[in-house]
Amino acid sequence: MDGGSENMATKRDIVGRILAGRGMKPGAAGCAFAPANIALVKYWGKRDEELNLPVTSSLSVSLGRLGSEVEIQPAGPADVVVLNGQELPPDSSFARRVSAYLDLFRPAGAGFRVDARNTIPTAAGFASSASGFAALVRALDQLFGWRLETRELSILARLGSGSACRSVYEGFVEWRAGEAADGMDSYAVPLAETWPDLRMGLVVISGEEKAVGSRAGMKRTVETSPLYRAWPAKVAADLPEVRAAIRERDFHRLGRAAESNALAMHATMIAAWPPVIYWKPESLAVMKRVAELRAQGLAVYFTMDAGPNLKLLFERKDEFALGAKFSGLQVVAPFGP
Amino acid sequence: MDGGSENMATKRDIVGRILAGRGMKPGAAGCAFAPANIALVKYWGKRDEELNLPVTSSLSVSLGRLGSEVEIQPAGPADVVVLNGQELPPDSSFARRVSAYLDLFRPAGAGFRVDARNTIPTAAGFASSASGFAALVRALDQLFGWRLETRELSILARLGSGSACRSVYEGFVEWRAGEAADGMDSYAVPLAETWPDLRMGLVVISGEEKAVGSRAGMKRTVETSPLYRAWPAKVAADLPEVRAAIRERDFHRLGRAAESNALAMHATMIAAWPPVIYWKPESLAVMKRVAELRAQGLAVYFTMDAGPNLKLLFERKDEFALGAKFSGLQVVAPFGP
Repeated sequence: MDGGSENMATKRDIVGRILAGRGMKPGAAGCAFAPANIALVKYWGKRDEELNLPVTSSLSVSLGRLGSEVEIQPAGPADVVVLNGQELPPDSSFARRVSAYLDLFRPAGAGFRVDARNTIPTAAGFASSASGFAALVRALDQLFGWRLETRELSILARLGSGSACRSVYEGFVEWRAGEAADGMDSYAVPLAETWPDLRMGLVVISGEEKAVGSRAGMKRTVETSPLYRAWPAKVAADLPEVRAAIRERDFHRLGRAAESNALAMHATMIAAWPPVIYWKPESLAVMKRVAELRAQGLAVYFTMDAGPNLKLLFERKDEFALGAKFSGLQVVAPFGP
Repeated sequence: MDGGSENMATKRDIVGRILAGRGMKPGAAGCAFAPANIALVKYWGKRDEELNLPVTSSLSVSLGRLGSEVEIQPAGPADVVVLNGQELPPDSSFARRVSAYLDLFRPAGAGFRVDARNTIPTAAGFASSASGFAALVRALDQLFGWRLETRELSILARLGSGSACRSVYEGFVEWRAGEAADGMDSYAVPLAETWPDLRMGLVVISGEEKAVGSRAGMKRTVETSPLYRAWPAKVAADLPEVRAAIRERDFHRLGRAAESNALAMHATMIAAWPPVIYWKPESLAVMKRVAELRAQGLAVYFTMDAGPNLKLLFERKDEFALGAKFSGLQVVAPFGP
């Protein structure tokens, strides 16, 4: 990207503003957990690539105890990044991404050892960068003793990975897009409501790495899809639907809005050039199966992120029925069992 | 639909205007052929359901000798409709559609025997209603001795089936959407250019009847898809691309525009509610195969209509290579072999 250094300055600017007057001397260690989250109204498209500012607001549900645990300690001079017990090569894409993020906070010459562990099955298709960066920010807050407000943690997490800004909260979370160029009004807020009977079921189609990463897929869609221009209005219609469905605990309303939103997001990608098609033939087969089951009276919907796997939405009462229909279904209770 | 009788009057109005001063006494028989056509820039969405007036213009290529042959004779009093040698039950949907169309032309009390034969493999997934209605109009013209201009035949064919208005010409054909409420400016015009080396290859995924017919799928998309609002601009961008590609005989430009247009059309449907997904898992597998072959250097693209089958676009030089990749590929040379 052009003007990278200029944008990097802006990113540092944000960090400088949030940390003004806070200590930059690390303690012995920081350790924190953050949940993964699944969007019911998707984040798709940035208005600022460097600050991860979104075109639209989005709304997610966090996955309780499933997420990432991060421990950080001063070490060095070079960073060491360990993921699920395995030390990553320093030039691996994840280690480089973590180090680049730590650059925003590190005292001159300081290195860190970051130990990240996902409590969500790896290769299960749940995005772990959201929970990873949210946990990392909380761990940094502890390491340096900043005691930031959650809103500030949300903004810092966003600088690491857009959807990470939602993983600083449990339950239903709305990421307000904001309007400011510096993104100081673009952060997550929690919704008051809970939904103890809500369930998500993961249907794993493939654990393979995607041919087009979600960051690149998003960028290509915004730049080349003629249908993307209609996406912001779709989100603007779906957000109040999902909020109302949560408020009224109207499962069909929730499911319909979430499935329709996910399909519209994938539709914007399908119309990009070259097309961004994350669906595999098996994804389509499961989508059709969900439609059939619904036609037979089962209250089940799906959502899909930038990948081939499906996340089924249903209620506790149908958990057994769905387990029988989808072998190996991994069921998650976002509000606890 | 509400106000059906009122619209029917309008349809009769158009017929009355075009046939003003022409004889309405049938001769012994009329017999005509019309080619099937495949759109490179799709017709998707009506601005008038009764007169089959489109939201946008579209551009197709006719399939030479592959199409429909129709013979019509006075008979009666009841109509008899024969398709590929089989007399259809009078209450079958196709027989009723033909009879309703003949109502627009029949002298009081007159019945007809219509003998239609497709020269295109049935169940091959090529739409036969376009060639069928275009051939029927030409057969009526002969039966009654009207000697209408092709433009008038195009308008009459449109009243039977929208895309039939393109099947009154061979080669590349553009259906100009027009603006008039009565549709008198909505008809097909032929393009001067030919492309002898152009080939289409049909990949049959399924010959089954679709769960959602194309007329219903189109209507649901226009009414419920939030992405449909971006479709007219997509067509407006693709039409000059395809025209230029034909003029310059630039195959990649043609293929890219056609594939991108078809994907965008399907994307508008995927975002409808309930979603209109004509793709089957096998369709998606073939789409990915085409992308792979193209990445390997083979000049092949696809287009898809409202169904699961794919039509590959390529040039004569690659016919052998593609036949080896897709077993049972049915190859069509729109401009003759």
